[in-house]
Amino acid sequence: MGDRLEEFRKFRERMNARILESDNLEIKRFFALDTRAYDAGALPVKTKELLGLVASLVLRCDDCVTYHLARCQEEGVTRPEFLEALHIGLVVGGSITIPHLRRAVATLDELDGL
Amino acid sequence: MGDRLEEFRKFRERMNARILESDNLEIKRFFALDTRAYDAGALPVKTKELLGLVASLVLRCDDCVTYHLARCQEEGVTRPEFLEALHIGLVVGGSITIPHLRRAVATLDELDGL
Amino acid sequence: MGDRLEEFRKFRERMNARILESDNLEIKRFFALDTRAYDAGALPVKTKELLGLVASLVLRCDDCVTYHLARCQEEGVTRPEFLEALHIGLVVGGSITIPHLRRAVATLDELDGL
Amino acid sequence: MGDRLEEFRKFRERMNARILESDNLEIKRFFALDTRAYDAGALPVKTKELLGLVASLVLRCDDCVTYHLARCQEEGVTRPEFLEALHIGLVVGGSITIPHLRRAVATLDELDGL
Amino acid sequence: MGDRLEEFRKFRERMNARILESDNLEIKRFFALDTRAYDAGALPVKTKELLGLVASLVLRCDDCVTYHLARCQEEGVTRPEFLEALHIGLVVGGSITIPHLRRAVATLDELDGL
Amino acid sequence: MGDRLEEFRKFRERMNARILESDNLEIKRFFALDTRAYDAGALPVKTKELLGLVASLVLRCDDCVTYHLARCQEEGVTRPEFLEALHIGLVVGGSITIPHLRRAVATLDELDGL
Repeated sequence: MGDRLEEFRKFRERMNARILESDNLEIKRFFALDTRAYDAGALPVKTKELLGLVASLVLRCDDCVTYHLARCQEEGVTRPEFLEALHIGLVVGGSITIPHLRRAVATLDELDGL
Repeated sequence: MGDRLEEFRKFRERMNARILESDNLEIKRFFALDTRAYDAGALPVKTKELLGLVASLVLRCDDCVTYHLARCQEEGVTRPEFLEALHIGLVVGGSITIPHLRRAVATLDELDGL
Repeated sequence: MGDRLEEFRKFRERMNARILESDNLEIKRFFALDTRAYDAGALPVKTKELLGLVASLVLRCDDCVTYHLARCQEEGVTRPEFLEALHIGLVVGGSITIPHLRRAVATLDELDGL
Repeated sequence: MGDRLEEFRKFRERMNARILESDNLEIKRFFALDTRAYDAGALPVKTKELLGLVASLVLRCDDCVTYHLARCQEEGVTRPEFLEALHIGLVVGGSITIPHLRRAVATLDELDGL
Repeated sequence: MGDRLEEFRKFRERMNARILESDNLEIKRFFALDTRAYDAGALPVKTKELLGLVASLVLRCDDCVTYHLARCQEEGVTRPEFLEALHIGLVVGGSITIPHLRRAVATLDELDGL
Repeated sequence: MGDRLEEFRKFRERMNARILESDNLEIKRFFALDTRAYDAGALPVKTKELLGLVASLVLRCDDCVTYHLARCQEEGVTRPEFLEALHIGLVVGGSITIPHLRRAVATLDELDGL
């Protein structure tokens, strides 16, 4: 796993812990709600993670895209599936998403050890 | 089918025709590209329409949500599946999406003849 | 209270009830979390409702602006305070928020029975 | 001129007057700044109005699009020029702008008395 | 004060000076308008800075969040108050704001010398 | 040319090549459509690049702003013209665009070898 991904994960874990150790119960509840949204239900986890990925791309959040790319990969999403999902984000969100698409493909390559 | 949905479809068809009869070839190409993005491929049509739905909700476009709700229904998406997909949009996009969620559920009811 | 406001409230209440009677527990939890976010805590309710108002204006959600204007008024926010808060939203969010500012002032006039 | 356009202009003028008669000097200054941004300078008015139009389309503000379409028309923008400018907005902003593009073309037709 | 904050402040000051030394009078007027929006008026400075903070979070601008966190701290905003304000931004703006919330808490820790 | 600009260009070229060597034909078509949107037509290239620049600023995409600044400069856009175009983006998009305006002016200085 690449250095950039490792750094992202460490910062993410450290700050999540920092946020969750605070006394604000409502923020903790939001984090729990966020996690459960991707649990298996009527829709399978793989579909839900793809929904999270495309929502993150059209809203242009690199960290969120990185997170869902990794989760999708764990759920067995293939490169052609990734490209079709990212293409939907590109068409819906427009060329303004292209810099995020470039970084998404770079992240996929990093996840694949390319 | 409700009046609001019927009115939406008529305006949509009329203006699409009006746009496509213009001399701007590139806009026509964009419309064709947009249509093909939801064709069956590595991912099934149902998943792609759900991706379009959630992307539309987090970007808060009522017309786009209405369109994809109708297409998802044609692809057999059930009410529990709809609610899980819309919930992901709600969690990703926040309470600012709630007015669109209300209109989405009203549209679903209209599509179901409720 | 004006007809437009009354219509907004009825649709809001009807669709909230419709959403909360569904079997999706997580959406209900989001709605409860959303409500509690404006409860008194370290910050007073009035400040929290103003935060909700300005966040709604810069994200350009008319329904959300309408809701928080009514709540702010219940908390005693005065016209000069409203204008200063809306001005911050205008400066942060730019001229693209002006149509929403126009509708916000029309709503305030309606709430004041002007 | 169509009824919809006339209604838009009346509401716009009435609420602008209502906002400018308030005691908030800073909001008045913002409105003046906004107006001056499109005055002739190093760039001609026509180019500036096209910039306002495309910015309004990618930010998906129908009222702002309507306003700049009317102003562009007064500055002599032709239908092929309009379509090229709107196409740039479509490509940059994605398919999520299509409902606004439909309404923009309907407004152009109304402005042209079609 | 941490290195990251110091670097942010230096770049901010250097580029503000660079922008204000240009011949564009209107940009200077916007900067002055922006500054005055947070001056004491009907609403106290502390409330106005919190409004700027939450508007910045829901619009997901890290530099703007950093600036308002520092200003809020100067106005005496406490950690529980910060968390409640940030939580409102989180609920309104959704999980897409979480990466910015992480960086906001990291900045608060840096401001507190933690 | 500055190091930052050189690094941006290399990453951009490398990832564009990586994306275009994939088997996803539709993404390639989007990239071609995006390129052609700025070709000379009814509107001159210079105007189109300015439209791309302001659209990028109000959508707050630094990479897109950097790209269009460089293209505009190649088309002969002068500093006063740049400042007027960026000012329109600032007024339309609000103070939330200021961090991007700072980086845009830094990029212009780098492009000018200042």
